[in-house]
Amino acid sequence: MSPLSHFDESGASRMVDVGAKAETNRTARASAVVRMQPDTLALVRDRGVAKGDVIEVARLAGIMAAKKTADLIPLCHPLPLTSVKLDFAFPGADSLRIEATVAVFARTGVEMEALTAVTVAALTVYDMCKAADRGMTIEAVRLEEKDGGKSGHFVRAPS
Amino acid sequence: MSPLSHFDESGASRMVDVGAKAETNRTARASAVVRMQPDTLALVRDRGVAKGDVIEVARLAGIMAAKKTADLIPLCHPLPLTSVKLDFAFPGADSLRIEATVAVFARTGVEMEALTAVTVAALTVYDMCKAADRGMTIEAVRLEEKDGGKSGHFVRAPS
Amino acid sequence: MSPLSHFDESGASRMVDVGAKAETNRTARASAVVRMQPDTLALVRDRGVAKGDVIEVARLAGIMAAKKTADLIPLCHPLPLTSVKLDFAFPGADSLRIEATVAVFARTGVEMEALTAVTVAALTVYDMCKAADRGMTIEAVRLEEKDGGKSGHFVRAPS
Amino acid sequence: MSPLSHFDESGASRMVDVGAKAETNRTARASAVVRMQPDTLALVRDRGVAKGDVIEVARLAGIMAAKKTADLIPLCHPLPLTSVKLDFAFPGADSLRIEATVAVFARTGVEMEALTAVTVAALTVYDMCKAADRGMTIEAVRLEEKDGGKSGHFVRAPS
Amino acid sequence: MSPLSHFDESGASRMVDVGAKAETNRTARASAVVRMQPDTLALVRDRGVAKGDVIEVARLAGIMAAKKTADLIPLCHPLPLTSVKLDFAFPGADSLRIEATVAVFARTGVEMEALTAVTVAALTVYDMCKAADRGMTIEAVRLEEKDGGKSGHFVRAPS
Amino acid sequence: MSPLSHFDESGASRMVDVGAKAETNRTARASAVVRMQPDTLALVRDRGVAKGDVIEVARLAGIMAAKKTADLIPLCHPLPLTSVKLDFAFPGADSLRIEATVAVFARTGVEMEALTAVTVAALTVYDMCKAADRGMTIEAVRLEEKDGGKSGHFVRAPS
Repeated sequence: MSPLSHFDESGASRMVDVGAKAETNRTARASAVVRMQPDTLALVRDRGVAKGDVIEVARLAGIMAAKKTADLIPLCHPLPLTSVKLDFAFPGADSLRIEATVAVFARTGVEMEALTAVTVAALTVYDMCKAADRGMTIEAVRLEEKDGGKSGHFVRAPS
Repeated sequence: MSPLSHFDESGASRMVDVGAKAETNRTARASAVVRMQPDTLALVRDRGVAKGDVIEVARLAGIMAAKKTADLIPLCHPLPLTSVKLDFAFPGADSLRIEATVAVFARTGVEMEALTAVTVAALTVYDMCKAADRGMTIEAVRLEEKDGGKSGHFVRAPS
Repeated sequence: MSPLSHFDESGASRMVDVGAKAETNRTARASAVVRMQPDTLALVRDRGVAKGDVIEVARLAGIMAAKKTADLIPLCHPLPLTSVKLDFAFPGADSLRIEATVAVFARTGVEMEALTAVTVAALTVYDMCKAADRGMTIEAVRLEEKDGGKSGHFVRAPS
Repeated sequence: MSPLSHFDESGASRMVDVGAKAETNRTARASAVVRMQPDTLALVRDRGVAKGDVIEVARLAGIMAAKKTADLIPLCHPLPLTSVKLDFAFPGADSLRIEATVAVFARTGVEMEALTAVTVAALTVYDMCKAADRGMTIEAVRLEEKDGGKSGHFVRAPS
Repeated sequence: MSPLSHFDESGASRMVDVGAKAETNRTARASAVVRMQPDTLALVRDRGVAKGDVIEVARLAGIMAAKKTADLIPLCHPLPLTSVKLDFAFPGADSLRIEATVAVFARTGVEMEALTAVTVAALTVYDMCKAADRGMTIEAVRLEEKDGGKSGHFVRAPS
Repeated sequence: MSPLSHFDESGASRMVDVGAKAETNRTARASAVVRMQPDTLALVRDRGVAKGDVIEVARLAGIMAAKKTADLIPLCHPLPLTSVKLDFAFPGADSLRIEATVAVFARTGVEMEALTAVTVAALTVYDMCKAADRGMTIEAVRLEEKDGGKSGHFVRAPS
């Protein structure tokens, strides 16, 4: 059997049948980093100076994107999310860290929703700052933690 | 004046007025890398073995996502794209590289469309392989090149 | 604590966590009034004369919009609606009244779905009649009643 | 002939053929008022106090909704908007006024886009404040001005 | 070279580059037949008897679906349609014929938009009548005519 | 009472109230046939020759369309699908058969989701092959089987 469950035994893609799985509370937490010039980061961080709040726009874009995950990722199940939140931090002079936490009571998990939220939030930061800094990059998009469901609790090993 | 053109002088966000800009051919090329266990990469690369083609699913997800860019990124303009293509390469034993090239004849560029395409393609790879390798990361999402419009030709400096 | 639950203690917007709330039957009823020239109203009311049924188009637009509420209102939860209906009445020679009733079995209510339904139905009436009467206005969009959930039964006080 | 151009001579609805109209610059400006308790308005206006910025969320919702107009209003044409902006004012102790200005270079106007933007922004204000004030109403949704196209310049008569 | 232009020389799918094609007026006409029990057809045809107008709902669904074509068909280009109309006829005691005509001024044609319109209209008829007649079928979905663009005028040969 | 449950007693369309129905496992299976020139069919079937896999693109389009059913069919309920799969067969030298199976645990069935999946998959085949064969037709779109819910098990009579 293929370890890739999105394919059947003949190699055809499918939306995996989760009908027999139990509805449980499921959460996922993902993160991403946007790397940019320190001057650009200052514009993002010092909202008063820049006259405009990049982070709030990115936050809303991330929340709304979480709700569109099944529309974007072909084999994802549509899920009635119960909670989405995004946090932003400045771990260094050139980097903005975005973290999303998503929850649902459903038959399958919300890793993709959390990853989609941080990714679209990061793209929104790029969009808003690109006039100032076209060389920005998005780095380290990854799942930090997930809970609920048969596969149990996952926490990313420190790197 | 703020260097962030998505805000007006009072700091309010807006969809920037591009009505006075000329319609020209505009292209953008962006890339991303998905890093994963070599065993996972083998499943992606050796389509016959895995019985299922992760890359074709990711490719379509990226093409379709490019068309949804204005829906995802709050201040992006809706654009009638004339071309979208995605290329995949295997630069190392643990990494899949995705590149998207997008074109339009319009008043504003398609950087965000190219970046959205590679990002959603990368998330789709994550989704399809996550049962095998939850620790995958998406790295180095970046604009490689853009052309057309007043700001001229941009090519990313080699890093 | 802020009385605005869509913000956390730091002021960041979020999709409020409803995971701990009970799934119950929830209904909401909202209304709006479209005010127009009596001649325009006559075109809407006398479907035979006008050769075309503005109200049926508006009704469908309202039903379909209720299903898009979570896509439109940034912090709304996606909900599997179980019922949507719209009613139209002619309370005066210059006004069309639209009422929507929405139901769901879920962890949060459907006020926004009912309000979105009447609003989009009203905008659709405007669109279809604007060639005849550009001065139409939409008035008195409001929640009439809601039931289900911890906050109990709400009925709007007569104005 | 019916004065309602969205119907043909048999009364069937249709997306009106604008293929023979000239592409020109077209703009539209629309407004709406959200009426609420003075205490609720204070929460919206004094962003520092409320720890959270209702207006910025509503502004983004309005901009994004303008882009979805053809998806919401059945017979609207899809248009490549070139500019969308929203302004907010506090004309009285109980009312928030929202104004949207939309532009396009196209064969048909953007009245519906401007009206959709203010309406969805107003609904978003309702959503964010409803825990504090369920009796809020949306009033006076109307077209203020439009320009471009054969029907010429329209400015709403002062009321 | 593959006769299937949606694949490049390596077999990868893509949105074909139409940037070098001329913008011209393009139209397409497509049709479909819904076959059902004569009693069911009577319900559809005799709107007064059935108290409800299946055809108007199907017509609107078809118009709105034409606008979603690029969202549904993976490699279709997004196009700013200038006209969409649907016609219904009753060629026999058990069949409803649906025809859609779509127009655009663009670099590529609207066959898929016309086909999507008739198909979704037919599915909507099925949805509304399925409680009465689950055995209905949709038949003969086909392109009737197209014009504009380099491939010239196509009219389906009578069958 | 009208046998068409999507209308109320006055003939107004509505999303039928399913709030009182039981949540059960529900499945539906639908099929469609795409008829084309034998040479075109060969291109679809012999993936190696054509350098490009029409069927995998159509399969994904069908899966994604099943998730959009409530967006396309005006009176359909939004449903959290638990499974979607599509199968393709070649029953003759000129025909491709598409079958979709959809499942959900919900208050209403998924016939429309299965029918939408096969229809959009068939349209996608048309799109990808139309440069080679504009005369293709889609035939025999129909429900094959449904189960779950009060109306019980339905299997289409052999034709």
